[in-house]
Amino acid sequence: MGIDPGAANLGFGIVRVEGNHMVALDGGVVETTPDLPMEQRLERIHRALAELIAWHEPKAMAIEEVYFGKNVRSAMAVGQACGVAMLAAAERGVGCFAYTPQAIKMAVCGSGAAGKRQVQKMVGTLLGLPEPPTPDHAADALAVAICHGGTSGHRSAVAVSREASSDLGGERIAG
Amino acid sequence: MGIDPGAANLGFGIVRVEGNHMVALDGGVVETTPDLPMEQRLERIHRALAELIAWHEPKAMAIEEVYFGKNVRSAMAVGQACGVAMLAAAERGVGCFAYTPQAIKMAVCGSGAAGKRQVQKMVGTLLGLPEPPTPDHAADALAVAICHGGTSGHRSAVAVSREASSDLGGERIAG
Repeated sequence: MGIDPGAANLGFGIVRVEGNHMVALDGGVVETTPDLPMEQRLERIHRALAELIAWHEPKAMAIEEVYFGKNVRSAMAVGQACGVAMLAAAERGVGCFAYTPQAIKMAVCGSGAAGKRQVQKMVGTLLGLPEPPTPDHAADALAVAICHGGTSGHRSAVAVSREASSDLGGERIAG
Repeated sequence: MGIDPGAANLGFGIVRVEGNHMVALDGGVVETTPDLPMEQRLERIHRALAELIAWHEPKAMAIEEVYFGKNVRSAMAVGQACGVAMLAAAERGVGCFAYTPQAIKMAVCGSGAAGKRQVQKMVGTLLGLPEPPTPDHAADALAVAICHGGTSGHRSAVAVSREASSDLGGERIAG
């Protein structure tokens, strides 16, 4: 299960590894509205993810690592959303892993500098979808899931070099 | 209920306003060890706070606002801990409010530039405790609780000026 964390729009994507390829089981966005108090937005995110985890029983949760840039407020909100997503995983005994945007692009496209559209297109191709998945947050979440799930099939598909793929390793999230 | 958020040590403090003064009902620290995966640390924090909220039925949760400084990793961990604390509040219908460290110092000591020891001493005095509360995180959490709860009694006690106190207002936490 991949997560593209955010308080307003949290993307999720669930992928199953089948032999040497992957299939998409689910994907979408948990949306919350800014007129709700933040704690209620977090409750909505937590409940939605808890239901998805109960339904799909994923083996792991892979989260796109966020960078703290300009906006402290939104960074804080992303951290909080991330926290309740990880809690939903922990409550079902699902381990969490973090991947940098570079590692995700590398896993999906074979280049850490790949553009957003390129990633979406490759996500569609790798999952055998008729067209690139939408919306963006769902596609990004599927990309994280592919990054975590992918140790075999898709790497030959995208021809990641041995050197590059050795850099992909997701990290257990430490406090 | 006041919260001094952190993943390793999250301080909590529960205060009741009684007429023109306040009493401490509870205070302490939820500790988690770094050898646990982060999602399990968050689960422990969430469970501990959920129990405290169920027991004390606080009217509000007041959280010390954290600043993102040097360390991105620990800032992220604080945001995650904050998220599960707010979730525990939301699950019981308790609203969350954020206060800056300056507002808290102003509410407790009458000066936004008060030192740590000074705040702890005043927390002890305002709550009628025989000595300043320990550990630090619990004292800080009690200070946030005092800041939120205090619109009457303690202000006369610490003689905050009208001008200063008008700056204290906690904010609903927006995403």
